[in-house]
Amino acid sequence: MTKEELFDNIRRKKSFLCIGLDTDVRKIPQFLLSEDDPIFAFNKRIIDATAHLCVAYKPNLAFYESMGSFGILAFEKTIEYLRQQYPDQFIIADAKRGDIGNTSDMYARSFFEHLKVDALTVAPYMGSDSVLPFLKYTHHWVVLLALTSNEGAEDFQLTKTEDGDALFELVLKKSLAWGGSDQLMYVVGATKASMLERVRAIVPESFLLVPGVGSQNGSLEEVALHGLNSQCGLLVNASRSIIYADNTEAFASGAAAEAEKLRHQMADILIKNKLVEA
Amino acid sequence: MTKEELFDNIRRKKSFLCIGLDTDVRKIPQFLLSEDDPIFAFNKRIIDATAHLCVAYKPNLAFYESMGSFGILAFEKTIEYLRQQYPDQFIIADAKRGDIGNTSDMYARSFFEHLKVDALTVAPYMGSDSVLPFLKYTHHWVVLLALTSNEGAEDFQLTKTEDGDALFELVLKKSLAWGGSDQLMYVVGATKASMLERVRAIVPESFLLVPGVGSQNGSLEEVALHGLNSQCGLLVNASRSIIYADNTEAFASGAAAEAEKLRHQMADILIKNKLVEA
Repeated sequence: MTKEELFDNIRRKKSFLCIGLDTDVRKIPQFLLSEDDPIFAFNKRIIDATAHLCVAYKPNLAFYESMGSFGILAFEKTIEYLRQQYPDQFIIADAKRGDIGNTSDMYARSFFEHLKVDALTVAPYMGSDSVLPFLKYTHHWVVLLALTSNEGAEDFQLTKTEDGDALFELVLKKSLAWGGSDQLMYVVGATKASMLERVRAIVPESFLLVPGVGSQNGSLEEVALHGLNSQCGLLVNASRSIIYADNTEAFASGAAAEAEKLRHQMADILIKNKLVEA
Repeated sequence: MTKEELFDNIRRKKSFLCIGLDTDVRKIPQFLLSEDDPIFAFNKRIIDATAHLCVAYKPNLAFYESMGSFGILAFEKTIEYLRQQYPDQFIIADAKRGDIGNTSDMYARSFFEHLKVDALTVAPYMGSDSVLPFLKYTHHWVVLLALTSNEGAEDFQLTKTEDGDALFELVLKKSLAWGGSDQLMYVVGATKASMLERVRAIVPESFLLVPGVGSQNGSLEEVALHGLNSQCGLLVNASRSIIYADNTEAFASGAAAEAEKLRHQMADILIKNKLVEA
């Protein structure tokens, strides 16, 4: 999917919501456990109930890998289902990979050729050759970790380098040589919305994937204030606050209601900023 | 496995070799492709031929994930085979994970409870809460990326912080608060052997996992000179140079011959440094 297609989807749906499919077999409604594949059954219903409200889905691989090959199969089925039924969805595999060049080649092949997701989250610690193999797939995206929403983000990402930049700023700056805003997005946590201005000073055109709205208590208005650009430039992710909003047989409509709350706020923001018409 | 047990194995085998099982279906001998599970068939024969020469195996998850659920199954079978047949082997899942706390919890469960590997490689970029969940498993290990052997390592790992440390030194220093040398090891690339002195200044007691000897042309003597400690403190990894040493039906004995070359050098080093008797 191109940047323009993504922005078109955002305008059409008046939404820049990304739903995190962090599906944990211990947290899904109990009645699903009698299904052949409870994880896929859960995802399918969540997707059917929410696809009109969001422009992206972000399954986190950790949740699927924790169930071994059975979980990976559920992941593959989820991607395949999205591809078949909702081809306008931008699919981000949240795997935070990062390895030497020949290994990144393997991951790129795995996620872009085999699984056919649009984008993969990548950790920058190992530098250029851990990122470049993914960018050879010109119709796919890398979502690079810049400033994450967790407590430990302060340990290294905010460390000041001798040039006065924080490490996350150095990551952003170096990445400019690796790829443009048509292939690179960045993770910037909502819990640090004020930092978005420093991010935007370096990557004004890029899409930012913003976790931490919802369970992690970031504010959507703050994020929009500091992060919005002329093509929206934001994908705001919520995971647990949506998919586990309701634990009864009506879980899917519970999730949709929660997603609609965010989408409604997003529509107001897009209208107020003249990115869509009222 | 405890640090003492690992050192005992090193002395008994006169080897601190770790063999990387980076098994790529495109590189294994063609005749194996007729097997039900060519990846597992390859690993099994490599393991049977080399287990007496090494103290650890390190499968890189990327190679297994690139084949989807089928590959993960081959990975699971490989771990199970090692556990059953060679319980003295230290098994490192090279997955370079790193995510927020609740996701690291999932990974820890996956690798330590489900797969039962001894150790997992972890990337430090997301800080303390991406590492601590693994250390709750007190009989398991985290192998933290410090200074890797790839070209891109220079992009951030060698960046000077305002305190004058390189980022990899800050990673080592912060990690001291997270766990001791009985649970934390560090990846330090052999291509930067001179840096090992700076590493040893911060973590004198810890085991270091050293990739880059073999295909990546690091020198074993250099690594030993700067990295050895009183309990050996080194696991030197070679992957491609061993497992793809021979591409015929005799591939397993070809791999063993290559592994024995390294083990023989290691025995000399251990004897010379009075860590084992001649």
